Amino acid sequence: MTADINTELPPPPFSHRRRWASEQAISFLMQQAVENRDVVSLAAGLVDQASLPVSETRTVLEEELRDADHAREMLQYGTTAGLEKLRETLVEHLSRLEQRSAMEMDLTADRIVLTTGSQQFLSLVGEVLLDPGDICLVAAPTYFVFLGNLNGLGARAISVATDADGMRMDALEAQLERLESEGELERVKLIYLVSYYSNPSGLSLSEDRRSEVVEIARRWSKRHRIMILEDAAYREMRYDGPVFPSVWSHDVPNESVILTQTFSKSFSPGIRVGYGILPRDLVDPICDRKGNEDFGSSNFGQHIISGIFDRGLYYPHVEQVRASYRSKRDCMLDAADKYFGDIPGVSWVHPHGGLYVWMTLPDSVDTGFDGSLFDRATKHEKVMYVPGELFYAGSTAEKFTHQMRLSYGVQTPEGIDEGMRRLSQAVRAML
Amino acid sequence: MTADINTELPPPPFSHRRRWASEQAISFLMQQAVENRDVVSLAAGLVDQASLPVSETRTVLEEELRDADHAREMLQYGTTAGLEKLRETLVEHLSRLEQRSAMEMDLTADRIVLTTGSQQFLSLVGEVLLDPGDICLVAAPTYFVFLGNLNGLGARAISVATDADGMRMDALEAQLERLESEGELERVKLIYLVSYYSNPSGLSLSEDRRSEVVEIARRWSKRHRIMILEDAAYREMRYDGPVFPSVWSHDVPNESVILTQTFSKSFSPGIRVGYGILPRDLVDPICDRKGNEDFGSSNFGQHIISGIFDRGLYYPHVEQVRASYRSKRDCMLDAADKYFGDIPGVSWVHPHGGLYVWMTLPDSVDTGFDGSLFDRATKHEKVMYVPGELFYAGSTAEKFTHQMRLSYGVQTPEGIDEGMRRLSQAVRAML
Repeated sequence: MTADINTELPPPPFSHRRRWASEQAISFLMQQAVENRDVVSLAAGLVDQASLPVSETRTVLEEELRDADHAREMLQYGTTAGLEKLRETLVEHLSRLEQRSAMEMDLTADRIVLTTGSQQFLSLVGEVLLDPGDICLVAAPTYFVFLGNLNGLGARAISVATDADGMRMDALEAQLERLESEGELERVKLIYLVSYYSNPSGLSLSEDRRSEVVEIARRWSKRHRIMILEDAAYREMRYDGPVFPSVWSHDVPNESVILTQTFSKSFSPGIRVGYGILPRDLVDPICDRKGNEDFGSSNFGQHIISGIFDRGLYYPHVEQVRASYRSKRDCMLDAADKYFGDIPGVSWVHPHGGLYVWMTLPDSVDTGFDGSLFDRATKHEKVMYVPGELFYAGSTAEKFTHQMRLSYGVQTPEGIDEGMRRLSQAVRAML
Repeated sequence: MTADINTELPPPPFSHRRRWASEQAISFLMQQAVENRDVVSLAAGLVDQASLPVSETRTVLEEELRDADHAREMLQYGTTAGLEKLRETLVEHLSRLEQRSAMEMDLTADRIVLTTGSQQFLSLVGEVLLDPGDICLVAAPTYFVFLGNLNGLGARAISVATDADGMRMDALEAQLERLESEGELERVKLIYLVSYYSNPSGLSLSEDRRSEVVEIARRWSKRHRIMILEDAAYREMRYDGPVFPSVWSHDVPNESVILTQTFSKSFSPGIRVGYGILPRDLVDPICDRKGNEDFGSSNFGQHIISGIFDRGLYYPHVEQVRASYRSKRDCMLDAADKYFGDIPGVSWVHPHGGLYVWMTLPDSVDTGFDGSLFDRATKHEKVMYVPGELFYAGSTAEKFTHQMRLSYGVQTPEGIDEGMRRLSQAVRAML
């Protein structure tokens, strides 16, 4: 029996979630990058190719694979939560970052879940907490990929204003009051914060706001607990400025804050190991969900990261990475002075870490994909940036359209200088 | 400002999906395995530790990491769909498995998506197609982890009877007719089939049913397309018997069948590389969703698998794996004859591939977690199996409760013999 291939079939039966998942801006950017191979990309948030840990990885693999029994362990299934040995190491790692003992933090390995980058952890938290129509409060601007996650869940992202100290706590309270008065408080489940050197703004949440946001989340937890999702992806990419303990560390009873970090920036994104630390009553829900999604991330990759720590190779590598990005950041800030310093109405953030310089142009310049600057920059000057409006939740009216995220991640110092020169030409052409 | 830690906080605000995701039976089984370390496990569906490709992996990594530029490529981010070079290799691999040219199959690399095991691919398909209340038709029995996925989506799994040739096509038609008469046809979106050496039954779908199911799915695609999800995880684990082309190969216009396969059984589960082949109009939806979930699986792991193929190491390894499992299957079938042959009312399937022997006991013996056999087996005889009822969708009344899935995956031949001896003792004690 053969199917009649002349019959026209109706379309596939997509789920609502598929329809909610709007076209990802990142796909458009990657498409542009492919179509304009000769552009200098200040858009890509990738890490610096030259800094990737080749010799460290070689050393670890040579040694870890030498013993056949151990090699077989690496090649076998792991567990859903991930390699216990690495989770134990992460307890020590957190202890070092927070400058507090594991006991003081009440942190044990069974509260840690290893994921495929921290992105999978962010996605899992959304799945486990958010129903369609539920609300997540986010900074304006915030990490746009997580806005995509919220869209895909049918959840609502509501913006909270920021200043140089990160999300404004008065604005957060004001949004909560407004939502309560509108009968929507019961839909508010999550506050999402990029707490260190935020993507895109480069800004960190100030010390006093770190404790304040925990207090606010607790106080507004009237009928259910309002959770805080602290995305600390760039935490270890600190070049200067103050050392902050995490928001998570201010949640003494370990009930409200979920913390996620990653080795994608500080070590290698290709090995794809991120992790999250959970209040105890969220561990099973996240593991159940992850079990359904993939039974656990690459056990082999987790063994590599574990081996890197065992041999004392991690911290020296992070120092190298920091030194390299510090000089690239300086290079971009110098180039900003050199090429944009005399353009009226242009300003930018001086980040203490991370991968991005956030630049604001005069109001009249539309930086969006459909604006003339993007076209001029990519097609004529051959340079690419990420339009600032992508980082704002909500309707078009709520979005600033005259900002740009500039990354010094992948370019060489020369590439950064040249990219900034080209970009300044494109901006001048708009004025 | 410090949070008042004496205040009792309300519970976390879990999503409906969290609540739908019922306790995973696999967690209970793993718990039992941990608590009863001295049991012989015929439950674990893990692969044979001894057969894992240690020398192959060493060779590939030594060579692939030698060139620093190439090593950096491996350590950098990949793409959401996965390493293009490996997807090109998979076109050739499919061509070899199907004995048809890529052109005849109309297969190109852009229809392939690499995932974290085939489990992630199964999960993505569910996300993209199924809304709460939607229907997926499954064999009785079927792979229980996918039943967990369907539960987690709030979707309904409806059973279709099977016989020695796999899912019965008359029963499939009868279910579709019944659902149409009840006004539910518009909720039927998916037919899930484990087409080769099914987990748990060990049975394959017969040749004529492979084309028939495609024809049925097309014919019943009245207002939307009914998709078939073909899970061919065990395809390459063939020990004897007929060689079947996939169900997917019978879908000439490439519109209805989604095929997924994995390297977890044939090579290494720890490297965690699976993949799916999609009708063209499902590629973007799956990649968008995967982008939100993790930006792409481990690029490093994909390079390892790619390197294994490049060096001609894959097919010889699969032959070794087959030989090893073939003898273990024979060992389990011999032990079944030896220890169960004289117990009235006991029968079992002789599988041509895969990892499982499916055994049926007399009706009176309850094989469930709460029945006396499971307790007797784990606590007294020190042997573990997976209760058959886990593999049935629907209400308790629809489940057979006197079957067991026995795996020869992880045990040595001696372990298999001893496990079967112990299990027969436990069964005899019930009669």
